[in-house]
Amino acid sequence: MAKDKKFVEAITARDADFAQWYTDIVKKAGLVEYSGVKGCVILLPYGYAIWEQIQKELDARFKATGHENVYFPMFIPESLLEREKDHVEGFAPEVAWVTHGGSDELTERLCIRPTSEVLFCEHFANAIQSHRDLPKKYNQWCSVVRWEKSTRPFLRTREFLWQEGHTAHATAEEAAQETLDMLHLYADFFEDFLAMPVLRGRKTDKEKFAGAKETYTVESLMQDGQSLQSGTTHNFSDGFARAFDIKYTSKENKLEYVHQSSWGVSTRMMGGLIMTHGDDSGLVLPPNVAPIQVAIIPVMMHKDGVLDATNAVKDRLVAKGLRVKLDDSDYTPGWKFAEYEMKGVPLRLEMGPKDIEAGQAVLVRRDTREKTIIKLDNLEQEVAAALEGLQTALYEAARQNRDNRTAHAKNVAELKDILDTKPGFIKGMWCGDVVCEDAVKEQATATSRCIPFEQERVGEGCLVCGKATETMVIWGRAY
Amino acid sequence: MAKDKKFVEAITARDADFAQWYTDIVKKAGLVEYSGVKGCVILLPYGYAIWEQIQKELDARFKATGHENVYFPMFIPESLLEREKDHVEGFAPEVAWVTHGGSDELTERLCIRPTSEVLFCEHFANAIQSHRDLPKKYNQWCSVVRWEKSTRPFLRTREFLWQEGHTAHATAEEAAQETLDMLHLYADFFEDFLAMPVLRGRKTDKEKFAGAKETYTVESLMQDGQSLQSGTTHNFSDGFARAFDIKYTSKENKLEYVHQSSWGVSTRMMGGLIMTHGDDSGLVLPPNVAPIQVAIIPVMMHKDGVLDATNAVKDRLVAKGLRVKLDDSDYTPGWKFAEYEMKGVPLRLEMGPKDIEAGQAVLVRRDTREKTIIKLDNLEQEVAAALEGLQTALYEAARQNRDNRTAHAKNVAELKDILDTKPGFIKGMWCGDVVCEDAVKEQATATSRCIPFEQERVGEGCLVCGKATETMVIWGRAY
Repeated sequence: MAKDKKFVEAITARDADFAQWYTDIVKKAGLVEYSGVKGCVILLPYGYAIWEQIQKELDARFKATGHENVYFPMFIPESLLEREKDHVEGFAPEVAWVTHGGSDELTERLCIRPTSEVLFCEHFANAIQSHRDLPKKYNQWCSVVRWEKSTRPFLRTREFLWQEGHTAHATAEEAAQETLDMLHLYADFFEDFLAMPVLRGRKTDKEKFAGAKETYTVESLMQDGQSLQSGTTHNFSDGFARAFDIKYTSKENKLEYVHQSSWGVSTRMMGGLIMTHGDDSGLVLPPNVAPIQVAIIPVMMHKDGVLDATNAVKDRLVAKGLRVKLDDSDYTPGWKFAEYEMKGVPLRLEMGPKDIEAGQAVLVRRDTREKTIIKLDNLEQEVAAALEGLQTALYEAARQNRDNRTAHAKNVAELKDILDTKPGFIKGMWCGDVVCEDAVKEQATATSRCIPFEQERVGEGCLVCGKATETMVIWGRAY
Repeated sequence: MAKDKKFVEAITARDADFAQWYTDIVKKAGLVEYSGVKGCVILLPYGYAIWEQIQKELDARFKATGHENVYFPMFIPESLLEREKDHVEGFAPEVAWVTHGGSDELTERLCIRPTSEVLFCEHFANAIQSHRDLPKKYNQWCSVVRWEKSTRPFLRTREFLWQEGHTAHATAEEAAQETLDMLHLYADFFEDFLAMPVLRGRKTDKEKFAGAKETYTVESLMQDGQSLQSGTTHNFSDGFARAFDIKYTSKENKLEYVHQSSWGVSTRMMGGLIMTHGDDSGLVLPPNVAPIQVAIIPVMMHKDGVLDATNAVKDRLVAKGLRVKLDDSDYTPGWKFAEYEMKGVPLRLEMGPKDIEAGQAVLVRRDTREKTIIKLDNLEQEVAAALEGLQTALYEAARQNRDNRTAHAKNVAELKDILDTKPGFIKGMWCGDVVCEDAVKEQATATSRCIPFEQERVGEGCLVCGKATETMVIWGRAY
C-alpha cells in the first residue's frame, strides 16, 4: 500500500497552491505532457478521450442546427490577413510566420491561422453569388496557433485544438440571431454536459473580438474565484463583407452585402472542467463527458469466479450504452482506487469473492466518496441513478460556489477589496465609457467579464465616475 | 431543362482527358475548392463529409485493435528533426519552416510536421521506463505539410489531412506483427468499405520510408491504369529507439531498446475513390462511404400529398440507419437528377403523384442507371438489396479493371511497351539490385510498386540483367 500513499500525497492541496494543484492534476491524471516546444503540449490518451467526448457532443448539436463541417488550409498569406484593419491589428502581433518551403524563401510570408475569418471570407466572396447560396453555415475542427508569451496547459497554449464556426447570411437580423443562437447552444452545452454553470452576456467594446460588431460570451467561475471566458460568438454584421466584397443577388435582383458570424470553443474548456469540479484527490468528471463512467475493480482477482463475475457486470453495463473499464491489471486494488480517483472516474464498483457470493457490489461515488452496497439484481438502475445524481450534484456544487462568490460593489475600492479577499463575479454599474473600464483595470486589476443578459440594478451610478446608468457589468479577474 | 444539359455537358469524358475529367469531378461534385495558397485546398461540406465517413470507420477499427488517440504538436524543432539521419534526409527538403513568432525571430527554426515520428520518439523516450509501459499503440488525426512542387487536389497537396499511427513494443517480433496487422487492416478497409481492390506487398529498399527497416504498402489501380500508393506501414525495428535512446526495463530487469512501427493513410484515398469508381456523369460512391446513400426526389412536388409521402419514405429509411436526403428545394427534378448523379449518390428514389397513388417509387442505381419500380411495401428490403448490390458491383468492376490491366513482362522493352499501350500492374522478375530498379525507371519510366505477398514466377531471370531470381515485383506508373 506504500505506492498508494505516495500517489495521493503527490497532489498539492487546492488551499495550499491552486496553480500547483492544477498542474499536478493535468500531469497525474495523464491528460497532458509537455513537448520540446514551449507552450505546445501533447494531449495524451486520457486527455484526448475527454476532448473526443466534447467533440462528439458539440458536433451533433452543430449538425442538428444545420451546420456543415469543412476544412480550410492552415496558411494565411500576409496580404490576406491585412485585408480587415481591426482584425490584423488584433492578431498580427501573435502569429507564427512561415518564411521558407524546403530551402526556398517564400515570395510572401504565410502565417499559421490564429483564427480563420479571412480564409472563409475569401472563399465566400467566390462561392456566394445568389440568395440561393445563403445561408452558409460552416464549422471546422482544427488547431490554431497564437504565439503567447506565458502559457499554461489547456488555458493558454501556443497551439490548441478548437472548433470555429463561420456563417454568412442574407440579412443583418439572421446573422444577429445566429450569433445569439450559438451562444445559447454553447451555454446549454456547458450546463447540461460539462455541469458548468455559465453567465451569458455581451462583451464591452474593449473586450470584443478584433473586427466584430458584437461579441457574446459564456463566462464560468472557477473554485478559486477566477473567471474563465469559456466560449465566444461574434456578429460581424457586414464589416468583413465590405472588406472582402462578399455580395449576393437578392430575390429582388439587387446586389447586397452578406452578414456574418463566427464562434468558437477550444480545449481551454478542459482547464475549466478541472478547475470547476476537481478536488484534492484529483480530477472529478461529470458522467456525461467522462471517457470512463464506471471503473470496475476486482478484489482478490485470482480467486475463482471473480473475473467472470466482474466481466459479467461489465457486459451488462456496456449493453446499457455506458463507458466502462474493468481493470484486471496486476496492480493492487488500492493502487487502482487511487488511480481512478485521480482520473475523476464518476463511479467505482468493487467486487470480491464475498460480494459475489452475496450477489452484491460496492458502489463508490467519486464526488462524495460515499460507499453503497448494491444488489446486482438492481445493477443497471443503481448505476444509472448514481450517475444522474452525480451529474446533478456537480452542477449544484459549482452553482453554489458561483453564487457564494457573487457579490456587488458600489465603487472601485470596494470592488478591489472584494476581489482581494473573496474573488468571484462582482456586479457593478458602468456608464459605458472605456475610460472608466480602464480605471477599473488599473485600480482593481479587474476586467469586465460581460454585460450579462440578465440585468439588475445594484447601484445608481457608474462605479468609477458615478454617472447615472442602467448598465450592470460583471467584473472579475480572469484566466 | 437547359440548366441540366449545361451541367452534364460540363464534364470532360474520361477517354478525352482523364486528368481534366478528374479535376471536373473534384470541382463539380463540390468536394474541393482551391485556396489562395498554391497546393492548399478547401475541403467543402460534401468532400469533408466523405472524409468523416472514412474517419469514423477507420477510427472504430483502430480502437477495436487496441489503439488510443492522442494529439501531438505540429511543430518540430530543427535539431529534433535532425536526430535520425535517414529520416531528416528524406523530409528536410520538403518542409515548411516557421522562423518568427509575432515580430520576434525564433532562436531555433521550427518545421511544421511532415510526419511525426521524431515527436513521438521524443515523448516515448520520457514516457517509457518499464515493460509495464508497453506496448504504446497511439494514433492521431491531424494535418501535415509537405512543400511539394507540383500539386493536385487529394493526390498531392502541400497540406493534407491524415492519420498517423505510432507504436512502441517490447520485441522486434511484436513490432513486425503490428506493421503487418495494420497493413491488413488498411487493405480490408479499402476492399470492404471503399470497394477498392488492393495489392498487399512490401516496398523495395529504394521506395521505403525514410528511416524504416521495412515498408509495406497497399497499392490500388485507377481506371486509367496508373497505380496509387494508398496506404503504408513501416517497421522501424530499433532504429529510432537507438537514435532517441528509448529504453525500458524488461521483466528480467535488463535495459532494452523498444521496437517501433508507424502507419498512415490520408485524404489521398479520396482521389483513389474518384478514379476507381467515377464515370462520365461524375462521382460514383460505394454505399458504405457515401454521405448520402439515398436521394429522394419528389416529382410534381407541389401536388397534394407528394411531400408527405416522400417524407414518410425518408423517415422509414432513416429509421433503418440509412443516410438519406430528401431534396425539396425549388430546383427542377431534372436538375436534381443530374446533381445527385454528379455527387455519386448510390440510389435515387423518384416519387410523383402517380407513384404515390400506386404505392410505388422509381429506384435508380447510380452505377448502372437501371430503373426499377418498387412497391413501397417492400421499401426497406428493396433499398437494402440495391445498396448491397451496388457495393459489390463496384468492387467487382474495379477488380475486373485491375485484372484486365495486369500483365507480365520478360524484359524492360516489353514492360515499356505494355505501359505505353495498356498501362496497369505489370509483373516482372527482379534480382534485388537497385541498379536494375533504376534502369527500369530510366528505360520504362516505371517504378516498383511493391513486392507482393502473393508471389509467382513469371520468368526465369531479372527483367534487366537476366540474373536468376525468385522475386517478382509489380511495376507500374504511379500518381
